[in-house]
Amino acid sequence: MAVVKEVLEIAQEIKDMRIRGAGKIARSAAYALQLQAEKSTAKDVDEFWNEMKQAAKILYETRPTAVSLPNALRYVMHRGKVAYSSGADLEELRYVIITAAKEFIHNSEKAVERIGEIGAKRIEDGDVIMTHCHSKAALSVMKKAWDQGKDIKVIVTETRPKWQGKITAKELADYGIPVIYVVDSAARHYMKMTDKVVMGADSITVNGAVINKIGTALIALTAKEHRVWTMIAAETYKFHPDTMLGQLVEIEMRDPTEVIPEEELKTWPKNIEVWNPAFDVTPPEYVDVIITERGIIPPSAAIDILKEEFGWALKYSEPWED
Amino acid sequence: MAVVKEVLEIAQEIKDMRIRGAGKIARSAAYALQLQAEKSTAKDVDEFWNEMKQAAKILYETRPTAVSLPNALRYVMHRGKVAYSSGADLEELRYVIITAAKEFIHNSEKAVERIGEIGAKRIEDGDVIMTHCHSKAALSVMKKAWDQGKDIKVIVTETRPKWQGKITAKELADYGIPVIYVVDSAARHYMKMTDKVVMGADSITVNGAVINKIGTALIALTAKEHRVWTMIAAETYKFHPDTMLGQLVEIEMRDPTEVIPEEELKTWPKNIEVWNPAFDVTPPEYVDVIITERGIIPPSAAIDILKEEFGWALKYSEPWED
Ligand SMILES: Nc1ncnc2c1ncn2[C@@H]1O[C@H](COP(=O)(O)O)[C@@H](O)[C@H]1O
Ligand SMILES: Nc1ncnc2c1ncn2[C@@H]1O[C@H](COP(=O)(O)O)[C@@H](O)[C@H]1O
Repeated sequence: MAVVKEVLEIAQEIKDMRIRGAGKIARSAAYALQLQAEKSTAKDVDEFWNEMKQAAKILYETRPTAVSLPNALRYVMHRGKVAYSSGADLEELRYVIITAAKEFIHNSEKAVERIGEIGAKRIEDGDVIMTHCHSKAALSVMKKAWDQGKDIKVIVTETRPKWQGKITAKELADYGIPVIYVVDSAARHYMKMTDKVVMGADSITVNGAVINKIGTALIALTAKEHRVWTMIAAETYKFHPDTMLGQLVEIEMRDPTEVIPEEELKTWPKNIEVWNPAFDVTPPEYVDVIITERGIIPPSAAIDILKEEFGWALKYSEPWED
Repeated sequence: MAVVKEVLEIAQEIKDMRIRGAGKIARSAAYALQLQAEKSTAKDVDEFWNEMKQAAKILYETRPTAVSLPNALRYVMHRGKVAYSSGADLEELRYVIITAAKEFIHNSEKAVERIGEIGAKRIEDGDVIMTHCHSKAALSVMKKAWDQGKDIKVIVTETRPKWQGKITAKELADYGIPVIYVVDSAARHYMKMTDKVVMGADSITVNGAVINKIGTALIALTAKEHRVWTMIAAETYKFHPDTMLGQLVEIEMRDPTEVIPEEELKTWPKNIEVWNPAFDVTPPEYVDVIITERGIIPPSAAIDILKEEFGWALKYSEPWED
């Protein structure tokens, strides 16, 4: 019984944030399950299913807060579990897993495109947009608006400590869109010239609070102060089912060496602690709308998405658990 | 007729921000005038006074927005001008300048101490304080509270792009005060655990708006949202006389290479502009009190300080101008 090495590699890359962004993490996790199914040398269906569960568990444990990750695993493994319980043989189960993984990846990619189409309608010619971090869904909105011939400009914050703003700035610029790149602290200074804020989400709670890259809440706060709309672009698999049962989302604390290089940190006085939270929580009242692939919703409708999409997730133990 | 090389060196250091912090800049400028007076080889009083004016002009032009700098120059040069006009000889004028410079430096250092004493009374045992950038006056408040045996902890933001937070964190830690060091974007995330915000000012306008390091306004905004007091520690020479006549404070735009290293920036697409504003403006309604060496004032009393302190500055042309 063995997990294939590609799964371990992907798990490591998710852990190290070489694979980043909630969507990419989710698709990579689904793809890892697909590879496990394709490359497994298991001799019978029980061995195969045990391997799948083991792979899912390894992937699940890489990032405690990326809700898209368990949601992707749930999507694939739930379908596997149903097939396994109803007596599928090895090849049938392999087929179910591979198909489910491909389906998830396809839907997820389509979701980003669809979000672009829906969100771009709320962008007007001449708009100055502010964004934070690197969100495929948020970028999709801006690119679509640009495709439609709208003359936009994007203010990109650098996004300490990991500088995801650089990736965003270059991706937009390569697409032809003019970019203004600033430090995170400049968000309020340039909010007066900003028309719309478009950001992504790592996950969304049952009451419409947005967990996203540290700094998101500050930008949404000053946007509200300026009567500038904060629009959150988020695929439905970003909605956090456990929050329906009261679960608080754990804010991942990452290594201090992301903030201060290890060599430098060694020389610092011992009574300085470096705290490095990956995310913050934006209250629903600072969010104008959430743009999903199903359509635009107010944050208060997060519960409707959750009930529709993940109702089932609350009725079972995780599909990779015994 | 010559400006001594020490003046040019100090001017360069101010320009490059090797000398930084409004107080230090002001004292360095006064000290530069003192050195000019001490080392001048001028043969008569006219040559000497022309050198002084030239030195003052060079210093004045280093940083367009640091109000403490012209205020320091005004303090020294105004006294020089009065002496010169009333017929002082070379040695008398030299003495007046040196004395005025020493006086300014002494008052300014005493001001920081006095601000510490006054501000510390508003710090309570167990307080968690948040600060931004590196402000001698703000640090004086925290150190004084610590000296009084109050068990405080300070959250220090790194302060991109120039990392002045590192200097602040180490200075506090070396003083024995426990420090939590975070990226600027974490200000809202940790505002819930913050009891008081203490920050400095680069300058203060006639209506009590605070011009300070980029990011200050965001922190003050979220502090207000949390009913956490924002206290601005500022010597009276930070108050901006020109704003009484309607002048807007110019927000200094600094070099993009402070944000992105030159080598890296060269490789970036041409449609990315890097904007690097040094300061932002915090509206008076987000500021609870301003702590000056004269006492605590509400931001609305900024005009009283200005009328008292710099009334004269508005009646004359700059003392280094003909
Ligand atoms: N860790 C968390 N997990 C889930 N929801 C949270 C969490 N922290 C805050 N919230 C919600 O997000 C909003 C945060 O508001 P505030 O803390 O006032 O900025 C509220 O609606 C909370 O219910
Ligand atoms: N460049 C500036 N110079 C002087 N005062 C300013 C400047 N910018 C803004 N203010 C004042 O600072 C406050 C800024 O408020 P706001 O722009 O709404 O954040 C207002 O009280 C303005 O009068």
